[in-house]
Amino acid sequence: MPRVSTDQLAARRQQILDGARTCFARYGYEGATVRRLEQTTGLSRGAIFHYFRDKEALFLALAEQDARRMADVVARQGLVQVMRELLVGAGNGTDADDLSWLGTRLEVSRRLRTDPEFRERWQAHSAELTAATRTRLERQAAAGALRDDVPVPVLAQYLELMLEGLVSHLTMGLPADELDGVLDLVEQAVRRS
Amino acid sequence: MPRVSTDQLAARRQQILDGARTCFARYGYEGATVRRLEQTTGLSRGAIFHYFRDKEALFLALAEQDARRMADVVARQGLVQVMRELLVGAGNGTDADDLSWLGTRLEVSRRLRTDPEFRERWQAHSAELTAATRTRLERQAAAGALRDDVPVPVLAQYLELMLEGLVSHLTMGLPADELDGVLDLVEQAVRRS
Repeated sequence: MPRVSTDQLAARRQQILDGARTCFARYGYEGATVRRLEQTTGLSRGAIFHYFRDKEALFLALAEQDARRMADVVARQGLVQVMRELLVGAGNGTDADDLSWLGTRLEVSRRLRTDPEFRERWQAHSAELTAATRTRLERQAAAGALRDDVPVPVLAQYLELMLEGLVSHLTMGLPADELDGVLDLVEQAVRRS
Repeated sequence: MPRVSTDQLAARRQQILDGARTCFARYGYEGATVRRLEQTTGLSRGAIFHYFRDKEALFLALAEQDARRMADVVARQGLVQVMRELLVGAGNGTDADDLSWLGTRLEVSRRLRTDPEFRERWQAHSAELTAATRTRLERQAAAGALRDDVPVPVLAQYLELMLEGLVSHLTMGLPADELDGVLDLVEQAVRRS
């Protein structure tokens, strides 16, 4: 085998994750066969499973990466901004692949419901998003930007539920006409009036 | 075959639907095997498929019934009330079967995403809920109970997204501590202040 640098290894790993994301989004977890994974990643099964033990491990790595990215954006820009970016993505994209991480998220939801072991493993990631949301809200509260008659954990939960709703709405391909107005309403509901 | 009355036929049909709802919620659509459907309905496969052509037809009938029930409650009591009842159900129920229609809903979401034909068939039902929500909001607006600086379709969409978020949160078995406060916030956001 030729030597490859750490960078090359990381790039290859990321290529697999990106292709797999498209595949899971398009066909669902069960429908993402090895053959289809080969097509969307552009790599052979040998290469794919050199990096990931099996389909399960690949899916988990993907879901974890997406969860971490989202927590990062929340920490920097807040959950309403995450939602606004979702909308822009959905508006541009007749191409559903732009929103492929939504598919991963929906698969995560489904497995959380049917697989207690997965639920336990996933708890850390869902806690990460909650923590990022709360930290940012607390900073905003300290700056006097938030309403002060509702506790921060309630505001955080409110925003998270709205995100869940938005994700599932967009993933189902339902109409997005009123969604800008809805997000204005959401933002207004947490801010100091 | 002994003669049976229309009432008996309807009761038997409902028995199958109720058992199937439990089965789909517990095992997901793919996991709801004929054997498991027999167990949860308490009927033989012969009896089940006398009433429903196949598993697909059974699932559709179930999803339609649940969608119609929800539209009914919305028309009478509003979407916030639907959400409050969900919470009470989730709070009482360590028994996930109480919330089994949530499972149906999540399966619907997943199929909407992956199955364009299903999406088309389902449009009518999702429109039914939207129409019920708007009608009720328009009545409340006429009575002066709603804020008047945001159009009714935006308020309706806002409530529907929140419902989606709540459903997916509860289905995943995530903590419900702050949800009463969240619903107060939601209700307040649509009312005249």
